[in-house]
Amino acid sequence: MANVEKYFKLVDQSQQQFIETLREVVAIPSVSGDASKRSEVVRMGEWLQARWEALGAVCKRVEPGKQNLEGTELDLPPIILGQYGNDPTKKTVLVYGHYDVQPALLSDGWETDPFTLVEKPDGRLVGRGSTDDKGPVLGWLLCAETHKQAGLELPVNLKFCFEGMEESGSEGLDQVIVDEADKWFRGTDVVCISDNYWLGTNKPCLTHGLRGVSYFHLQVEGPGADLHSGVFGGTVHEPMVDLVHLLSKLVDSKGHIQVPGIYDQVMPVTEEEEKTYEGLEFSHEALARDLKNDIIIHKEERDTLKHRWRFPTLSIHGVEGAFHSSGDKTVIPAKVRGKFSLRTVPNMEPAKVSELVTKYLNDEFAKLNSKNTMRVIETHGGRWWYSSPNHPNFMAGAAATEKVYGVKPDLTREGGSIPVTLTFEEALGVNVLLLPMGAADDGAHSINEKLDKRNFIQGIKLLGCYLYEVAQTDLTAV
Amino acid sequence: MANVEKYFKLVDQSQQQFIETLREVVAIPSVSGDASKRSEVVRMGEWLQARWEALGAVCKRVEPGKQNLEGTELDLPPIILGQYGNDPTKKTVLVYGHYDVQPALLSDGWETDPFTLVEKPDGRLVGRGSTDDKGPVLGWLLCAETHKQAGLELPVNLKFCFEGMEESGSEGLDQVIVDEADKWFRGTDVVCISDNYWLGTNKPCLTHGLRGVSYFHLQVEGPGADLHSGVFGGTVHEPMVDLVHLLSKLVDSKGHIQVPGIYDQVMPVTEEEEKTYEGLEFSHEALARDLKNDIIIHKEERDTLKHRWRFPTLSIHGVEGAFHSSGDKTVIPAKVRGKFSLRTVPNMEPAKVSELVTKYLNDEFAKLNSKNTMRVIETHGGRWWYSSPNHPNFMAGAAATEKVYGVKPDLTREGGSIPVTLTFEEALGVNVLLLPMGAADDGAHSINEKLDKRNFIQGIKLLGCYLYEVAQTDLTAV
Repeated sequence: MANVEKYFKLVDQSQQQFIETLREVVAIPSVSGDASKRSEVVRMGEWLQARWEALGAVCKRVEPGKQNLEGTELDLPPIILGQYGNDPTKKTVLVYGHYDVQPALLSDGWETDPFTLVEKPDGRLVGRGSTDDKGPVLGWLLCAETHKQAGLELPVNLKFCFEGMEESGSEGLDQVIVDEADKWFRGTDVVCISDNYWLGTNKPCLTHGLRGVSYFHLQVEGPGADLHSGVFGGTVHEPMVDLVHLLSKLVDSKGHIQVPGIYDQVMPVTEEEEKTYEGLEFSHEALARDLKNDIIIHKEERDTLKHRWRFPTLSIHGVEGAFHSSGDKTVIPAKVRGKFSLRTVPNMEPAKVSELVTKYLNDEFAKLNSKNTMRVIETHGGRWWYSSPNHPNFMAGAAATEKVYGVKPDLTREGGSIPVTLTFEEALGVNVLLLPMGAADDGAHSINEKLDKRNFIQGIKLLGCYLYEVAQTDLTAV
Repeated sequence: MANVEKYFKLVDQSQQQFIETLREVVAIPSVSGDASKRSEVVRMGEWLQARWEALGAVCKRVEPGKQNLEGTELDLPPIILGQYGNDPTKKTVLVYGHYDVQPALLSDGWETDPFTLVEKPDGRLVGRGSTDDKGPVLGWLLCAETHKQAGLELPVNLKFCFEGMEESGSEGLDQVIVDEADKWFRGTDVVCISDNYWLGTNKPCLTHGLRGVSYFHLQVEGPGADLHSGVFGGTVHEPMVDLVHLLSKLVDSKGHIQVPGIYDQVMPVTEEEEKTYEGLEFSHEALARDLKNDIIIHKEERDTLKHRWRFPTLSIHGVEGAFHSSGDKTVIPAKVRGKFSLRTVPNMEPAKVSELVTKYLNDEFAKLNSKNTMRVIETHGGRWWYSSPNHPNFMAGAAATEKVYGVKPDLTREGGSIPVTLTFEEALGVNVLLLPMGAADDGAHSINEKLDKRNFIQGIKLLGCYLYEVAQTDLTAV
């Protein structure tokens, strides 16, 4: 493994240059959720394509179609597909990342301009997109560039898929993956995605499970238009009153879901699984510090993790159609939509979840004897993802982590959803590994988003080392 | 009473000219709630002042101070005080109205541009402010102008107080009324306000009662910032979950308030009062038509009126701080404020209402065993107003109504609040009459606001005739 050691050395020598490259891409405000920034998103995609092509990669710019954003019809940003190396004797690794970012304004509370990367004395590289997901996307590029500069070949063929809509629902992506499964993605042996985070701030991890999400709108409709509460209060059935009654029936203050039958589909915790919670880098003390307030429901750390990873949960997000500004308004809203979602786990089926939720709410609404009309609308039903951490792809990730960080990675699941994981697994029929670069406190969607310099530099090593490990792993030994 | 008949005749002859004047003022978009329209509000106030001064009135432009609107510091629109006639042998009537209007956009669903008055074949004069409150405010002016043109003297001295902030909480007004009670308003015998509506669409009314309003913010606060429901759902106490539980405890689907003790303060319905509900122009059929949906709680019309006029009610208006846009967002809001208000009636005391509501919510929150923090904030506690309909001021209003419309007016109360009523009564120590010009279906705060031509023209007669009736009434015969 002389090559990987040479690679590590070169990465260490290039740290400042890598940070400059990160500064260059953070400066492109590729906010996919802001129509006025669409050209910057496209510019970021083109930057990536040009850089890979300069290296000798073959790229294909896929235009996934149109979208309607804030009333404007826009072209979706391109999905940049690439192929770097095409040696039939080597394995082929497909990597995914996204080059768009969350919105960010100095006035949101950022300490410095969000699109100017600032290197802090404590090692934080602060800037929008630093950790989500420009750092990891650069990781693959800088790995390939470093190899080329050193006259080293990559140990595998690399394919990539970089999208510019991840922060806005990955519109257009699934269809492209399905369409290209037997074309551009043909021959892929394994997939690696670096777009999530460590469980804590010190110990690296591999992620092998994600929860699904079923999102609902609970609509209650009464009069033809908003009413004045002085005139109509107490004389008509108020949609908002019915709505809060129904929402209060969904989940108790301790997070226990009240919908009958929901827990019946949940896989029981096995003894073997119970053991995997030992020694994880996770403490309530650190969590309460992150939350700025100890509002943790559970007594034991492992129970918190179980409720994050492997039990279903129900959250209430808000209400559309009601008064939502500051100040006072004496309105009776005519039509309101409560928004809530369930996070789902093995072996829950979205269709069954929807059926149980709808039936329960219909029953509860009937009890109210209201003359308003109620409707449950499921707007999204995405499945959970679960992969065995014993797959050789995960072994390769674990071995690379040990080489770079000198520690066995935690095996984690995540409470959120990364839908593309399941799409790749199902469309390509290969194993997908989630190999995070950033730490738990990076603040991906928050103000002052950062990537620690340590995680960036070691992360570039990790992604490269993972390719070496895949190269020498027997992927058929499942 | 030759003069009043001459006046009526002139009004009939001037109909088209009056409509043109209404068109002129509707065209000034004096939206007090929109910072960008502040200069139009001021322009409207100046229009009124100029027109009254041209007539010979003495005016005083009061600048009530500054306000903060949408982050901008703005001058409050002027309050135009006036004195027209100063004959010590005549009585003095103070009239109040407002020259600002609610916001209106064509895109809200207006059939025509809201700031262009359209005269419909069915007699509707459609335009923002037509009925609320530019029609009535013009009524007083056109009455005085008509008299002057005809060489007639008004039978009373007129004082007026026209404000430009009524649709935005009348900021600054109360202090001006208190300050001027012994100055500009000195010598006022009675007050007349024309800023409310008939109970139905055919029969005029006098209004002698208003409900008070106590407005509350119920705040629940948890983490230091919004959280991702994928990561934190089911592991922390969610403020929004606690909030919907608490809101659901306030009132049932039938409008019955659940706060213990609230109904103890309510004056019982007397047999005499029970009789006053006979023969009022009010039907559930018409109400359901207005509402576009029969969501009426009560079986009997009189019960609906009692719950509008003389029982307390509780409405839930919305939630600040939660997700409120269209679409899906998987957020756990960190800090949410439920907004609700109670309409209060004789003999409820705002302080007692606040005490009962706060205690109840604290007790209910304690039952939730949540680690979040909860706070009840009373943002407004305005008292109800009740006046005897047997006061000579009301007798004058009733006599004028019979002369103009040929029918005894309904004696009504209103479910809403017109706080200035109580302020005038308390600051000046004189009787206040609410004498509406518009009808129940005018849609004051809605799209396609209108004033029927009949109500406008007869209303101008009514306001004038009322002055003649006051002139010959013994106001001391209380």
